[in-house]
Amino acid sequence: MITIAKDVRKELKGLGEKVLKDIEKQENPNIEIPIRALSNVVFDKKTGQLGLGDKTSKRFYFNVAHSKKFMQTMMVANFTNSLINEKIHASIRDMYYNLKRTFPDSNENTFDEQQESDPIIVDLEVALNILRENLHLTTDRKGIVAGNVVIEDRGDKIDWSKLGSGGWSIPSTVDEIDFDRVNADFVLVVEKNAGFERLHEDKFWQKNKCILIGTGGQPSRGTRLLIQRLNSEHKLPVYVFTDSDSYGWYIYSVIKSGSISLAHVSDRIATPEAKFVGLTISDIFEYDLKKCTIKAKEIDIKRAKELLDYEWFKNPKWQKEINLMIEKGIKAEIEALSHRGLKFMSETYLPSKLKKKDFLD
Amino acid sequence: MITIAKDVRKELKGLGEKVLKDIEKQENPNIEIPIRALSNVVFDKKTGQLGLGDKTSKRFYFNVAHSKKFMQTMMVANFTNSLINEKIHASIRDMYYNLKRTFPDSNENTFDEQQESDPIIVDLEVALNILRENLHLTTDRKGIVAGNVVIEDRGDKIDWSKLGSGGWSIPSTVDEIDFDRVNADFVLVVEKNAGFERLHEDKFWQKNKCILIGTGGQPSRGTRLLIQRLNSEHKLPVYVFTDSDSYGWYIYSVIKSGSISLAHVSDRIATPEAKFVGLTISDIFEYDLKKCTIKAKEIDIKRAKELLDYEWFKNPKWQKEINLMIEKGIKAEIEALSHRGLKFMSETYLPSKLKKKDFLD
Repeated sequence: MITIAKDVRKELKGLGEKVLKDIEKQENPNIEIPIRALSNVVFDKKTGQLGLGDKTSKRFYFNVAHSKKFMQTMMVANFTNSLINEKIHASIRDMYYNLKRTFPDSNENTFDEQQESDPIIVDLEVALNILRENLHLTTDRKGIVAGNVVIEDRGDKIDWSKLGSGGWSIPSTVDEIDFDRVNADFVLVVEKNAGFERLHEDKFWQKNKCILIGTGGQPSRGTRLLIQRLNSEHKLPVYVFTDSDSYGWYIYSVIKSGSISLAHVSDRIATPEAKFVGLTISDIFEYDLKKCTIKAKEIDIKRAKELLDYEWFKNPKWQKEINLMIEKGIKAEIEALSHRGLKFMSETYLPSKLKKKDFLD
Repeated sequence: MITIAKDVRKELKGLGEKVLKDIEKQENPNIEIPIRALSNVVFDKKTGQLGLGDKTSKRFYFNVAHSKKFMQTMMVANFTNSLINEKIHASIRDMYYNLKRTFPDSNENTFDEQQESDPIIVDLEVALNILRENLHLTTDRKGIVAGNVVIEDRGDKIDWSKLGSGGWSIPSTVDEIDFDRVNADFVLVVEKNAGFERLHEDKFWQKNKCILIGTGGQPSRGTRLLIQRLNSEHKLPVYVFTDSDSYGWYIYSVIKSGSISLAHVSDRIATPEAKFVGLTISDIFEYDLKKCTIKAKEIDIKRAKELLDYEWFKNPKWQKEINLMIEKGIKAEIEALSHRGLKFMSETYLPSKLKKKDFLD
């Protein structure tokens, strides 16, 4: 287990002490928060990750424009401190309802909408350089995993290889699980749950000695954190398998480099070593799937053109694939592989790509 | 395990033999299919379920308007027969890609879009009186479960009480699982995953001897089938816990009585004995959640008015709640209970409702 509760408490305490010191010195109490606007998002070529630059702003107590947010920041910090002390978790929506109050003899609420409390959480993530998950705040879970792995979680020993057709549902917080045994050569991340089910039924993870993760679309933070831990702690290569379209490729890029809106936590939830195994547009021709392509919509092409400009798609092989999509005006889903037979994906396509190391990076 | 593969094969064989017989008798080969339009959907007050009436239509081979669909029906029947024989499963999208072909020297495809193959599956469900799941066809999975239950699935023994914070991810087909041990007094179905996580963390299922199911919104067919099996095979009462709004109440109604679009399978996937435990609009006042209501939108009110007319909401207690919502113009989420403390839901609200048997039926 990564025991970080203590450090997070220290960070939260530090925040309180800083404000207290300001008051004692009779200064205007303030909190310094790195700026999260696009203007302060940078791509670090060395680490291959998005991150925040060094621009910061200060939130003051004695400032009509700041004071409500200042109070909200203190309330959220206090709330998460209680969560950690009581060893319980809450969803970000639970927190909103819990902190919503009306000041006596007024119509003024501490928080009017959840849209007010959500950004405060990110402010704390950035200001204290911690993850929301470490503050015991959760969001919706998504993602399933199967493989030859035994973990410990809340006192239970869970064997990911013995969960029948179901698999383990990945919770929103995975930093409290311990890995007891990890017997795998790599991690295969599949965008579609249907793809996960097919590969799981064909015992792909067993035959190919891997850990199989289904993300069900854009992966949840919990799923990204799990991928990151398997890669960094267990040195497992990560291969991402998505539809052959801008949306699927963006899913790969989020796993690998992080997203703009979560740039401040990329270094902890992204996996720069992740490689893309498919589908590529070239695969459509190489594996004879032309019958099963879909005409790309205007939005797909627009999105593809945006990807061309991203630093982390500058590899000539990626540029070739993206341009090929724009030129041909087609896309394809991983299910298209079923055109060649239901077991084509698990017995031919993936083993062949993996053997040839036919990856995009 | 409910071994139905044999019966389904028999049904599929029967379909083929019927067509063969037509040909031998030199009659126009045809298939009889019950009509699924709203005009043929009936609510059975005795069973409390939606179902199909007795109107049917015939699909003929020698009829320009029918022949393509006739061919498609035969193709899908043949495909699912292979799935059953090979003991593998496929998603309905996999099937579409697998069956998509172009006739030689033409531009004519067997199927142009998945929208063409999906209804054919339902035709077979209705005509053969079987479930799509029995044809080894899957759709997207959703739903998580935890509780004092041991099942067997694909040769694995899975203990739902020992899955840490994750829970078991409910697969799209649950008719092949065996229940080894079911130690619970009731099933609690929660609409929201966040609610599931809170209750799971508070060990609600352990303290209250129940099986906890999170549906993550409108429950998948797999989740509905699992609820139905726990109720019918293990005589467990089922209590549904949703937001206090028309959408949440409709989720309850789908679990209990089925949906119009799936009326033909209600008797096998609905659970008429299910009761509604909350949230009601009255709860908002009884449990002091007034601060945390949300103004109902026009669409919520419109939907609520529709619910008033449904046969299965005719109970005066339901009518009172729905009218109260329309009158007050408010709704509330289950997370609103966090306003009274994070453990209020698991330690006060639910135990009190369950003890008082304060259900809507």
